[in-house]
Amino acid sequence: MLLDLKDLYGKEKELSNEKIILEGWVKNHRKQKEFGFIDFNDGTCFNNLQIVYDNSLDKFLDIQKIHIGCAVRVTGELVNSTGDKQAKELKLSDIEILGDCPIDYPIQPKRHTREFLREQAYLRPRTNLFNAVFRVRSVAAFAIHKYFQDRNYVYFHAPLITASDCEGAGEMFQVTTLDLEKIASGGQVLYDKDFFGKKTSLTVSGQLQAETFAMAYKKTYTFGPTFRAENSNTKTHASEFWMVEPEMAFCDLDGDMEVMEDMLKYVIKYVLDNCPKEMAFFNQFVEPGLLDKLNKLINSKFTRIDHEEVITILKKADVKWEFEPEYGEDIAKEHEKYITEYFDGPVFIKNWPKDIKAFYMKQNPDGKTVSAVDLEVPGAGELMGGSQREEDYDKLLARMKELGMNTSDLDWYLNLRRYGGCVHSGFGMGFERLLIYLTGVDNIRDVIPYPRCPKTCEY
Amino acid sequence: MLLDLKDLYGKEKELSNEKIILEGWVKNHRKQKEFGFIDFNDGTCFNNLQIVYDNSLDKFLDIQKIHIGCAVRVTGELVNSTGDKQAKELKLSDIEILGDCPIDYPIQPKRHTREFLREQAYLRPRTNLFNAVFRVRSVAAFAIHKYFQDRNYVYFHAPLITASDCEGAGEMFQVTTLDLEKIASGGQVLYDKDFFGKKTSLTVSGQLQAETFAMAYKKTYTFGPTFRAENSNTKTHASEFWMVEPEMAFCDLDGDMEVMEDMLKYVIKYVLDNCPKEMAFFNQFVEPGLLDKLNKLINSKFTRIDHEEVITILKKADVKWEFEPEYGEDIAKEHEKYITEYFDGPVFIKNWPKDIKAFYMKQNPDGKTVSAVDLEVPGAGELMGGSQREEDYDKLLARMKELGMNTSDLDWYLNLRRYGGCVHSGFGMGFERLLIYLTGVDNIRDVIPYPRCPKTCEY
Repeated sequence: MLLDLKDLYGKEKELSNEKIILEGWVKNHRKQKEFGFIDFNDGTCFNNLQIVYDNSLDKFLDIQKIHIGCAVRVTGELVNSTGDKQAKELKLSDIEILGDCPIDYPIQPKRHTREFLREQAYLRPRTNLFNAVFRVRSVAAFAIHKYFQDRNYVYFHAPLITASDCEGAGEMFQVTTLDLEKIASGGQVLYDKDFFGKKTSLTVSGQLQAETFAMAYKKTYTFGPTFRAENSNTKTHASEFWMVEPEMAFCDLDGDMEVMEDMLKYVIKYVLDNCPKEMAFFNQFVEPGLLDKLNKLINSKFTRIDHEEVITILKKADVKWEFEPEYGEDIAKEHEKYITEYFDGPVFIKNWPKDIKAFYMKQNPDGKTVSAVDLEVPGAGELMGGSQREEDYDKLLARMKELGMNTSDLDWYLNLRRYGGCVHSGFGMGFERLLIYLTGVDNIRDVIPYPRCPKTCEY
Repeated sequence: MLLDLKDLYGKEKELSNEKIILEGWVKNHRKQKEFGFIDFNDGTCFNNLQIVYDNSLDKFLDIQKIHIGCAVRVTGELVNSTGDKQAKELKLSDIEILGDCPIDYPIQPKRHTREFLREQAYLRPRTNLFNAVFRVRSVAAFAIHKYFQDRNYVYFHAPLITASDCEGAGEMFQVTTLDLEKIASGGQVLYDKDFFGKKTSLTVSGQLQAETFAMAYKKTYTFGPTFRAENSNTKTHASEFWMVEPEMAFCDLDGDMEVMEDMLKYVIKYVLDNCPKEMAFFNQFVEPGLLDKLNKLINSKFTRIDHEEVITILKKADVKWEFEPEYGEDIAKEHEKYITEYFDGPVFIKNWPKDIKAFYMKQNPDGKTVSAVDLEVPGAGELMGGSQREEDYDKLLARMKELGMNTSDLDWYLNLRRYGGCVHSGFGMGFERLLIYLTGVDNIRDVIPYPRCPKTCEY
């Protein structure tokens, strides 16, 4: 019976008299004079299977020569293990080498630094750490889809190439089929000769287009790549990353926060339930206390507080700030940290000064703030940001003009307010931010299979 | 009780004495002297709800003035309908306008041409046709995720910006932060000053990177955007589209075909089960016979036949070909059509002449063909393409050199064959091709929310 290793676990009893065949890789090989142990995994689950063999097998001497990293087909019987690390092990009856591996194979069963593994990015999913990280990435992505699909949201594929430059903050990558060498020699840039007949870039957000779907389907979400051409080499910035952007009609800022909180708890719980081994590994080796942190979040009620009140708390705090907190201004990392510790849990900071927020956010009656919200979580800072959108045509137009924006490019966006527009809200969550929070792995380069960062575009 | 319309259907009995509140849009409004009917929908499901009101309501005259397209909150009771188009209707007790809509609103309840709606792309999801198309897009996307996740595949986010130009066929878009105007005036292109320190483009396929995940997780799949800068304005080509690329270790060409067939049947069945109204609509108004076509496919066994044998059949056929079929050459649309009609169902054409296929495909012992496969389906032609990958290091290297490829750029790809490499296979499915097949909508521009094509980059 040919199986995935994952399907073997949990069915050990039913399989106890079956001839079992597995195909996968040798993770470790410990040899004794008369017997040997192979740690086997096919990648479908986190835990290796121990394979035991002894010199009663004809091939015994050949088996002892099998290298770490080899692809093998193993046949055997599931028996009770005499070791205390596992309940069951596979008593080998046959093994076939499907793909050899030389002894200079870089991924040996020892501790490798993350920096070393970043240079071997194409091999690192074979290590425990990265195997766990990228499986959690996959499972968390599915949890996000499942959360929204189960709640009548329509998945919207936002366009990635865009001719608009007013989607929001952030430097953009240009996309072109013009021949740069010809431009260099010819001295002219003719965008009407470019592929799309105009200047185009990679999107920094699908939100504005997602609003068109919210006005048709009530609830929609994007989940796709976005891009930033910012030359910042930090642990939390990548040039290409995945973002989730839900958008809900008939939903105000309070409703927005409800979805943010509910979705986050759902996804965390889904990953804890479906990746228990991976999460236990992170808890033990990456971030001690991780499971407590996540379980606490799931069971907490998130605090909701105005930006202004946050500044008051920060000003009253007996702390020597690097950046002095000020009304009407943004808050710094140290402030985010303080405020989540102050409330001992996640905090929605809402009603931000309008001048530091985007043009499309709902203007509050005070004339000073907008109905925007950031979710700050303990140990990670800002995890999501959202807002009620300005649904008033005149106010939105006035704000765009005030900011000197080209309104004709966005006439369709403005028209959403004329044609049955309504109160609506949405938010964005950087998927990698969530993964950093979920796994305890603190560098964004280690939660993206092939990260793109300034001066880095390998594989 | 505030509900999504979708959650009302199927629960009519439980809800029959409840006060029901819904928020959505007026799709149609028929007024009589003493009563009126509003077709209401909130976008969470295909079927409108009929709302009836009469002049016993205080607001009767105001209600009669409500325009098509308005966003409204309605309150009422679910009652048996006297009409024969629906079992239940909502007897209105109150209605509130949440967002007005002028009478020049472009989406009136009449037939609009698809060309007209393409120009109003931001409003078209509000029409029956496009509402159905983009919901099916969302549900089919989820079905793909669910199929693979339920079968132990890891979802792999392939990088979109790439420095490699050897991923496969297809013209590429360049991605840059160089200032083109400066290049025009300065006369020099300095890629070491570009964002990534080298020339980069948008990917045409994530397959090569997906193979690295198959060698770690056994089974993996990509589902993300890909790009082609081909200047072809056909009904089946877009410059930006979504692709699914599964990749399986320990899987040969036969196993590959099994997954292709099984996945396709699963996704079609999932959509039929979960979008019955939408599919009935396509069957009635877009492609008569669609449901029969899809049900027949689900219940058929796909034919498997060698390319060579296909050519023999084509040559024997009593048909005047526009393009004469030839051994060793590609087949044309007319041939695809003939062969699916000949076998009266989907056909896997396998073992293609190596010179018309990609470098990474498994070289067969005959020295002439590779273990590649295309799936041809009746009425749509090629829906997927896959192959067993060349797992032999020396043969792969020789083929790359033969084709004049720069092998040092792909040393990591070659190394996959050295480090526990094994028989593996995969395939690619253009997601929009599937949607065209599923919906009967025959233009790719009508199954992508905001299509990007030569000279077209709107919204």
